[in-house]
Amino acid sequence: TGRQRIAVIAGDGIGTEVMPEGVRVLRAAADVFGLSLEFTEFDFASAEYYERHGDMLPEDWFETLSAFDAIYFGAVGWPDRVPDHISLWGSLLKFRRGFDQYVNLRPCRLMPGIPSPLAGREPGDIDFYVVRENTEGEYSSVGGIMFEGTDREVVLQETVMSRTGVDRILDFAFELADRRPARHLTSATKSNGISITMPWWDSRVREAGRRFPEVRLDQYHIDILTANFVLHPDRFDVVVASNLFGDILSDLGPACTGTIGVAPSANINPSREFPSLFEPVHGSAPDIAGRGIANPIGQIWSGAMMLEHLGHEDAAAAVVSAIEAVLAKGARRSPLTPDIGGTGTTAELGAAIAEEL
Amino acid sequence: TGRQRIAVIAGDGIGTEVMPEGVRVLRAAADVFGLSLEFTEFDFASAEYYERHGDMLPEDWFETLSAFDAIYFGAVGWPDRVPDHISLWGSLLKFRRGFDQYVNLRPCRLMPGIPSPLAGREPGDIDFYVVRENTEGEYSSVGGIMFEGTDREVVLQETVMSRTGVDRILDFAFELADRRPARHLTSATKSNGISITMPWWDSRVREAGRRFPEVRLDQYHIDILTANFVLHPDRFDVVVASNLFGDILSDLGPACTGTIGVAPSANINPSREFPSLFEPVHGSAPDIAGRGIANPIGQIWSGAMMLEHLGHEDAAAAVVSAIEAVLAKGARRSPLTPDIGGTGTTAELGAAIAEEL
Ligand SMILES: CC(C)[C@H](C(=O)O)[C@@H](O)C(=O)O
Ligand SMILES: CC(C)[C@H](C(=O)O)[C@@H](O)C(=O)O
Repeated sequence: TGRQRIAVIAGDGIGTEVMPEGVRVLRAAADVFGLSLEFTEFDFASAEYYERHGDMLPEDWFETLSAFDAIYFGAVGWPDRVPDHISLWGSLLKFRRGFDQYVNLRPCRLMPGIPSPLAGREPGDIDFYVVRENTEGEYSSVGGIMFEGTDREVVLQETVMSRTGVDRILDFAFELADRRPARHLTSATKSNGISITMPWWDSRVREAGRRFPEVRLDQYHIDILTANFVLHPDRFDVVVASNLFGDILSDLGPACTGTIGVAPSANINPSREFPSLFEPVHGSAPDIAGRGIANPIGQIWSGAMMLEHLGHEDAAAAVVSAIEAVLAKGARRSPLTPDIGGTGTTAELGAAIAEEL
Repeated sequence: TGRQRIAVIAGDGIGTEVMPEGVRVLRAAADVFGLSLEFTEFDFASAEYYERHGDMLPEDWFETLSAFDAIYFGAVGWPDRVPDHISLWGSLLKFRRGFDQYVNLRPCRLMPGIPSPLAGREPGDIDFYVVRENTEGEYSSVGGIMFEGTDREVVLQETVMSRTGVDRILDFAFELADRRPARHLTSATKSNGISITMPWWDSRVREAGRRFPEVRLDQYHIDILTANFVLHPDRFDVVVASNLFGDILSDLGPACTGTIGVAPSANINPSREFPSLFEPVHGSAPDIAGRGIANPIGQIWSGAMMLEHLGHEDAAAAVVSAIEAVLAKGARRSPLTPDIGGTGTTAELGAAIAEEL
């Protein structure tokens, strides 16, 4: 295979600490599997860049990043320095939209060696994907404030769903479900309360379902769906959701498996017209930044998802196996970070996974 | 105290099965504490009423119900007979808005005898309130469809927040927190993604916080907040949230305590200009309706919240104690329903709680 170019954006906080470990493991995988990966680092999409330039990104970010095969992303956000809605809408959300990464894909899986906060669940019991719409819906830029500063003050924000946008995420989710043994898709709705967009979402789900007769389809309102993530996580195989509902479910799912610090995510443009972006689920965690104890597994596992997207399925599987092997050894034989019960550092855990490869 | 009039609306499905038990326990409490409660039953707000009348409510519902001191509600919804957005918007949501019941209050508490799905948590560990805005926000009736049936189809729904609406729910939540020993209020936000309404929500929270300097205030984005309900439920005391976020949190909270089938809720108009409404968190559950095995505790506990609202705090506390006593005896000595590990019927469990009183 030819050379593949990867844009590396570490971002803020622990993003800058876990990223080197992600790159380390990817380099190791490239060695073992004879891949030609080229990494180029960028310092934008960070509070530091914002403080220097008054903007989260350079003007030519779109052209610059378009030249890459994928974007490997750490974490962005440092509320004490830049308000979140500026740092996020000025970087990550621009990438997702500018590159039309309309799928946000997040595995929720019980991993060996990581205790679940749920009683009596074992690895194997929980293994599903959240497929989140990633470009429209509740995350809109339409709205505003009227009668500002008075008692009549009213604030509006429009949820915007398009047939194009909803149908393509449903297609992705149905296709994913169709390839999995359980062939089961769950739709997150709230058509009993959100009375315009969500009944329409349900009707698009039903229509898409006709194109995938082999997939068992069900739906839950988001309130009781979150309850079922806790009570019956074994019921799920692929869960498809709007932007906001998907955001919630893809934090809650990893929380139920105890893996929120290690869960990966992919922001995918399936057309491959523009680069896709791979990032851990966890944020920049300014509170623990600078101490070298952040868990790098989310970053490394995201790297595996990137390898898969770039066509290197063997290498991707090997990275996931290396993560599992290191976790399975437990804190006595692996340098696990404090969040998962060890005393290892970010770099030690990254090195252990690279060696295992 | 004078006579107090209670409108009884059982609704659909198991609502009609648990309501008689709720009334039975309230009558018992009235006997013991010498209260004069008068119950009047209504058959509207049900699929059956809709099928007969083409509407969920009679035209004069507002005048009729305004004459009561409180509304005791079962559950509404039967999707096979009436689409949810019609049955709910045509009844429950009309009550909440028409009577300006702007507070939805839901306790989340580990109860004796009810196993938590979370590992290693004991009664006492989890005990907090979700305070949900109940009349505006994401549950709006503004929006519509454009280019219907074409590829350009786009669907809009406006979130509407008002200063009046948000400030009054924040005041309620701060006042509640201020009365509790922990004096801790958590605000549910998503200002990093929902970039217009939620940053404004945050600013109203900060401003209200200045009026309650004794209350410790923090905020979490809704995605990580749901994760924390699972990972650290002991961190919460009072949680305040918008309509949609509150809806989610007030199902998830009881799920984490294992009490979703027994949790109560109050829809309160603190001005007392109009009646408040008390209902279990669970829905109408058509799948188990007609079998006499529904758990009546949510209905009964909601009755306790109603007693408290009507000024009968002793009676309310006695009902909650009776519930706890019956639960604590376990399935061998109490006729617990199947959902909490027993073989009792709805009526047997209701009777046991009434007797305990
Ligand atoms: C039935 C539905 C409209 C309702 C809501 O979302 O408000 C319910 O989930 C609740 O929480 O009372
Ligand atoms: C940081 C925030 C804007 C973002 C989101 O809500 O999309 C994050 O929570 C995520 O899930 O990637």
